[in-house]
Amino acid sequence: MSTIRERVAEARRAGLILRNLDGETRNRALEAIAVALNERGEEIEAANKRDRERAESSGLAAPLAKRLKFDAGKREQSIVGVRAIAALTDPVGRVLKRRELDEGLELTQQTTPIGVIAMIFESRPDALVQIAGLALKSGNALVLKGGSEAVDSNRILAEVIAEATVAAGAPTGWIQLVETREDVRALLELDDLIDLMIPRGSNEFVRYIMDHTRIPVLGHADGICHMYLDRAADVARCVNLAVDAKTQYVAVCNTIETLLVDAAAAERLLPPVAAALVEQGVELRGCERSRAIVPEMKPATEEDWATEYLDLILSVKVVDDVAAAVDHINRWSSGHTDAIVTEDAATAEAFLNGVDSASVMWNASTRFADGYRYGLGAEVGISTARIHARGPVGVEGLVTYKWVVRGTGQVVADYSSGTRHFTHRDLS
Amino acid sequence: MSTIRERVAEARRAGLILRNLDGETRNRALEAIAVALNERGEEIEAANKRDRERAESSGLAAPLAKRLKFDAGKREQSIVGVRAIAALTDPVGRVLKRRELDEGLELTQQTTPIGVIAMIFESRPDALVQIAGLALKSGNALVLKGGSEAVDSNRILAEVIAEATVAAGAPTGWIQLVETREDVRALLELDDLIDLMIPRGSNEFVRYIMDHTRIPVLGHADGICHMYLDRAADVARCVNLAVDAKTQYVAVCNTIETLLVDAAAAERLLPPVAAALVEQGVELRGCERSRAIVPEMKPATEEDWATEYLDLILSVKVVDDVAAAVDHINRWSSGHTDAIVTEDAATAEAFLNGVDSASVMWNASTRFADGYRYGLGAEVGISTARIHARGPVGVEGLVTYKWVVRGTGQVVADYSSGTRHFTHRDLS
Repeated sequence: MSTIRERVAEARRAGLILRNLDGETRNRALEAIAVALNERGEEIEAANKRDRERAESSGLAAPLAKRLKFDAGKREQSIVGVRAIAALTDPVGRVLKRRELDEGLELTQQTTPIGVIAMIFESRPDALVQIAGLALKSGNALVLKGGSEAVDSNRILAEVIAEATVAAGAPTGWIQLVETREDVRALLELDDLIDLMIPRGSNEFVRYIMDHTRIPVLGHADGICHMYLDRAADVARCVNLAVDAKTQYVAVCNTIETLLVDAAAAERLLPPVAAALVEQGVELRGCERSRAIVPEMKPATEEDWATEYLDLILSVKVVDDVAAAVDHINRWSSGHTDAIVTEDAATAEAFLNGVDSASVMWNASTRFADGYRYGLGAEVGISTARIHARGPVGVEGLVTYKWVVRGTGQVVADYSSGTRHFTHRDLS
Repeated sequence: MSTIRERVAEARRAGLILRNLDGETRNRALEAIAVALNERGEEIEAANKRDRERAESSGLAAPLAKRLKFDAGKREQSIVGVRAIAALTDPVGRVLKRRELDEGLELTQQTTPIGVIAMIFESRPDALVQIAGLALKSGNALVLKGGSEAVDSNRILAEVIAEATVAAGAPTGWIQLVETREDVRALLELDDLIDLMIPRGSNEFVRYIMDHTRIPVLGHADGICHMYLDRAADVARCVNLAVDAKTQYVAVCNTIETLLVDAAAAERLLPPVAAALVEQGVELRGCERSRAIVPEMKPATEEDWATEYLDLILSVKVVDDVAAAVDHINRWSSGHTDAIVTEDAATAEAFLNGVDSASVMWNASTRFADGYRYGLGAEVGISTARIHARGPVGVEGLVTYKWVVRGTGQVVADYSSGTRHFTHRDLS
């Protein structure tokens, strides 16, 4: 039995081969996954049935049990998804910059795979297929840890993917499945072998990963998003946008948790917006100034500004102006997505510039903050980190770059002595 | 007396203002630094003199004492440097992507400052001026820790820069100077306030920083660089390139520490290359196969492959072919810069693709791996990290991006229900 370190080291070695496969070979391997998922459907369903029976007998909560399901329909969706990933533009080997340093001395900055990605996710087995597809497309080796409830589904899916891709030319060992919590703790220590960690799951889980590793983490713990209704806002727009941003899908990270209302327009805007939200079943928790206008609200405490409800609850605060809204957001927002509703372009720009979040929006629902809606193709995740990748991350978030210098014998001594001079001419 | 946390929090608040200054104001503040360095030259020289006298009486080593010097000449260089930074293209607000999501709903991905940068450097006071200029240009607040030998110089320079820039419109507190090792330890804990750490100094020092913080670190500990002489290499090129890469400036990170020689050409290439290096005073430490060809070499042990000498010492190893060279490099290189010398384009491309380092070179000296030589303008540092910024990093490494969505009232519910559809049309 290999240790986790040995298995991740194997992934790293495989990654050095994988990163040099051309885009066509990587796409052929993706198509092989699609074909194998279809051919081995019965095995996969049988394994998933075992997981679900175990879940049922152990009394797993209904929403989790539902996420566990990987039936013919889900499998078909995964196959479509893998083919869509194959159809994406190749993210590897893209030239970002080309520059003549001197005659016969050329610099190219080009994208390359990052190396070894570790992905830790909760129960959904379809996530395994998607992330394996994204890693393969971007030339990265992958270490996966799925939810323990889905152990049989994950095993068969990882096996099907490994076999199909290796037969199609991918290096043995490029995808590794680990299974226990002890394995995860071991992964967190392997900052010499793992280049990027992508945890998907509850806030507490992501926070735990972020707090216990030196490996860079792509993801977000909290999604405390805001919508600010400005004095120059149209009331119908406020109603539509607030209702959509809070209720269109309540348990996700890009849903708003706090509504800020400009004091100069609170009497005009807050009553109809509050009424529309209450009609959708939203519980409102307001500051004193907002409760003076809509007394039916429960009182909000400071804790509410720091809370991601992920539920039909919304905190409401009246603020003096756009600057106060920006200040509140920069203090309390998780830096995920924040929006302003206004018909005043100058106020909108002040907000868009002032708010220091990954996504900022004007007259649009925060729910648009999503890789698919942004047109990024398959979504790797949404990052609230400030470097590398920010906001919704597509497959481009799984590559880095390298510098390639092609010369004809040049030495630095000639440039130091002034015998030769750099031209530094950008090439198209 | 404020605590370190309070001072960094002040920098963070100032950073939220700084990031919204337009490029013109930031450039005016840079010019104000240049003017103030000139006007307050006597004060600065007096402070520097106190540092140097203290250094002398405490017996500071001559190279360190030399680096400490900040006289009229060095000051003039700093002034020229600050003006060169002002002349760089504005790295902030650059549009990376513009996409119509639907009619009246537009997405922009644009560069923004990272936020708060902490820079820790050793004795050179001119580094303080340069990094303050780069931070200001890129709209980032800055926390600085200089070498304790330069405490008087650093204080006056930080004061001059703070006063001049605040008078020119920068927010009070955007630049903070901290002084003790305890302060540095405190900084390492502030991952909620500091976004990026840039340590400059000895390998041990950078390694210490990397190992003791969760803040992303831009930099490199080791520079174990390689040059591989291929069977299809021209012997005169091998001599020139090996001599330049080892001896042009020996104590820097992009100097080679190991020379790999193709077995099929070792008898042809190694004797003249070894002779040229020995003539330059280089001590060679060879593997058994290379000592069979040049017996004068000392024997190398495995430890040599892992050593950054930063001195006139070079390890030499004969390898079977380009694949073996790539394997050796991917195992032992620090991922900084590695080069191949060959006249065979296919072999060169195999090397450039196979070697997983920040910079890879063909028929050029590794000494070209440098921000100035790459034409990046002032250099922030050289990074061996795999994400965010890799290799030589210019001011572009001090920005991140944000997503801005400008809509006209769009809600996600309309796209989920199929009432509306995304156009996802890239705009120029």
